[in-house]
Amino acid sequence: MSTSHRLRNLLVCVLIVLTAVVAAAQTDPLPSWNDRAPKKAIIDFVARVTKDGGSDFVPVEERIATFDNDGTLWNEQPMYVELAFALQEVAKMAPKHPEWQTTQPFAAVLHHDTKALAASGGEGMMKLFVATHTGMTTDQFERIAADWLATAQHPKFHRLYTECVYQPMLELLAYLRTNGFKTYIVSGGDQDFMRPFTEKVYGIPPEQVVGTQFKSQYSLSGGTPSIMRMPALLSLDDGPGKSENIDRFIGRKPIAAFGNSDGDIQMLEWTGSNPRPNLELLVHHTDAEREYAYDRQSSMGRLDKGLTEAVEKHWIVVDMKADWKIVFPATSAP
Amino acid sequence: MSTSHRLRNLLVCVLIVLTAVVAAAQTDPLPSWNDRAPKKAIIDFVARVTKDGGSDFVPVEERIATFDNDGTLWNEQPMYVELAFALQEVAKMAPKHPEWQTTQPFAAVLHHDTKALAASGGEGMMKLFVATHTGMTTDQFERIAADWLATAQHPKFHRLYTECVYQPMLELLAYLRTNGFKTYIVSGGDQDFMRPFTEKVYGIPPEQVVGTQFKSQYSLSGGTPSIMRMPALLSLDDGPGKSENIDRFIGRKPIAAFGNSDGDIQMLEWTGSNPRPNLELLVHHTDAEREYAYDRQSSMGRLDKGLTEAVEKHWIVVDMKADWKIVFPATSAP
Repeated sequence: MSTSHRLRNLLVCVLIVLTAVVAAAQTDPLPSWNDRAPKKAIIDFVARVTKDGGSDFVPVEERIATFDNDGTLWNEQPMYVELAFALQEVAKMAPKHPEWQTTQPFAAVLHHDTKALAASGGEGMMKLFVATHTGMTTDQFERIAADWLATAQHPKFHRLYTECVYQPMLELLAYLRTNGFKTYIVSGGDQDFMRPFTEKVYGIPPEQVVGTQFKSQYSLSGGTPSIMRMPALLSLDDGPGKSENIDRFIGRKPIAAFGNSDGDIQMLEWTGSNPRPNLELLVHHTDAEREYAYDRQSSMGRLDKGLTEAVEKHWIVVDMKADWKIVFPATSAP
Repeated sequence: MSTSHRLRNLLVCVLIVLTAVVAAAQTDPLPSWNDRAPKKAIIDFVARVTKDGGSDFVPVEERIATFDNDGTLWNEQPMYVELAFALQEVAKMAPKHPEWQTTQPFAAVLHHDTKALAASGGEGMMKLFVATHTGMTTDQFERIAADWLATAQHPKFHRLYTECVYQPMLELLAYLRTNGFKTYIVSGGDQDFMRPFTEKVYGIPPEQVVGTQFKSQYSLSGGTPSIMRMPALLSLDDGPGKSENIDRFIGRKPIAAFGNSDGDIQMLEWTGSNPRPNLELLVHHTDAEREYAYDRQSSMGRLDKGLTEAVEKHWIVVDMKADWKIVFPATSAP
C-alpha cells in the first residue's frame, strides 16, 4: 500500500468517526419535548451526574430513578385505569355474589350510582380492590389483569390503556437508561396489576416495579406450589408509603424522582434529601384538549400541596400543554 | 510492508486470539470446588441455559438466582451472626434499661443464662430483635450494624464475620453473574443488617437483598425526612415467607436457588416449579474440622426435612468436607 493510499484511508476513518460523533451530539434524546426549562434542566442534570471526574458525578450504581405510574407515565382520567378494571371485574363477578345487589359499594357499581360510589370513599374503594384483586393465586391475578389490558380501551382516546402512555416520558425513561440509570416504577397501583405490561410498554422489568401490596400466602397442594393473594393490605404505596417502600425495595435513595400528584410529595422529598445531586419533577396536567387539565380540585391525581412545595423546593414542573410536542405515541389503532 | 511481514503479523494475531480462547476454556470458574457431582451439575446447568439456540436456553432477564445467607454464603455457628450482634447490643443498651435485669429474655442475656435464653424460644428471640433492631431510623440502624461488623470477630475462626464467607460460594456468585444471572440474597436475616456489606463482600447491591422486614414510618422533621424502624414485624423472610417475598420483590420465579436449611425448602420448591430449566442446591455442613458439622439435630440451621426432600426432588446436596477444597477465603488477618 502506498503512503498516499494509507493517508487517504486514514482520513476516511477520521471522517467516519467525526461524523458519528457529530451525529451523536446532534441527536435529540427528548424529541417530543419542547426546548423549554424542564427539558434543559433534565439534560443538564444527566450531563452533570454522568461526567466522569466532574464534581457532580454519581457512580452508575447510585443512579436510581423512580417514577410514579398513574398520571406520570400513563393517563389516569376520568378514573384510574385500575379502578376501571375493578369496576368491570365487579360486574363480571356479580352473578356469583347476589349479596352485592344490596351491599355498598358493590350495589353502587352495579347500578351505576356514581354518587353512592363516591360517598363510599377510600374505604369503599378498598373493598372493591379486595374483592377483585385478592382470593386468587398471583398467577391467576396476573393473567386476569393482562387479559383485561389486552383489549380494554380508554373511553376518550379509543385506544388501549397501554397505548395511553406519555411519549415524552417513554423518551425520558430510555434517555436515563442510556445514561446508566436504573428506572423504577413506584406507584399506588397494585404491583401485580402493573408487572405484566411494564417490561413491554416501559422497558421496566417486574423486579423494578414497586406498588401497593396485599398480604400473600405460600402453599403446596399436590406437590404444586402457589401463592395466594390474601384479602388484607400489606403496604399502601402512596404518600409516605412510597418512601418507605423505596427504602424497603431499593435500599438507597434515588437521585431522580418523577410524579404528578400530592401522593408523590414524600417520594420527591426523600429523593431531595439525597446528598448526591438530585432532580425532582412533577407533571402538571394542563392540556384539556389533548389529554386532561386538572390539579388542585381534582378527586383523582390531585396536585395541590405539590404545586406549592415545588416552588419552595425548586422541583421542576412540567406544563404538559407547553412542554410536550405530543402526548401519546403513534399507534396502529384506527 | 512486505507480504511476508504482513503474513507474520497476521499469524501472531491468530496465535494471540487462539491462546486467549484456549485459556478461557481452560480457566476453571469454580477452582475451590472439587471435581465431583455438584460442581459438574452446576457447570452443566449454566452451559445449558446460556446456550443460544439450545432447547434449554433461558433469556438473560429470566436468569434469577436466589441465595440464602446464613449457612449458605457465610457461617452461622455457633450462633447466627445477627444474634451475636443482638446480644452485644443488649449488653450495650442495658444501662438505659434497668428493667431488663429482671425481664426475660433480657435478664438471660445479661446474666449469660443460656438455658433461660433457649427457654424463651422464638418469642424471646423476636423480643431481642425488636429491642435492638427498631426504634431508630434506617440510617442509624445501618450505621450501628456496619460499625459492629467492621470489628466483631468470630469466636472460633478469629477473623471478621464478613471474612467467614464461603470462598466456593463467592466463586459461584461470580460465575453465575458472568453468565448473565442476577444474583439475589433471600435470607431470614434483617435486610437492613445485610445491605451495608453485601455489595462489598458478595458483589450484591442493596436492591437485590431481600430479608426479614420490620414496619417502617416516614416522617418529616424540620424539613429533613427520615424513616423510623417500628417495633412490629412486617414480613418474616423464612420458610414460606421466602417464596412470598421472592414473588413480592422480584415478581418472577428464580431458575436457581441455594440454601442450607429447612427454612429454604419452600424457596427451592418454588424455584423447582419454574417451567424453565432450574437448579436447586443445599449446602450440607459436614466439616467439623474446617467449619462445623450439623444437620438434623441442630437448633440453628437445621437441615432435616430438606435432606429427605432433596433425594425425592433431585436437589443437589453439597458435602462441604468432600466438595470444597477450601472453606474461607485467604485473609490478611493473623
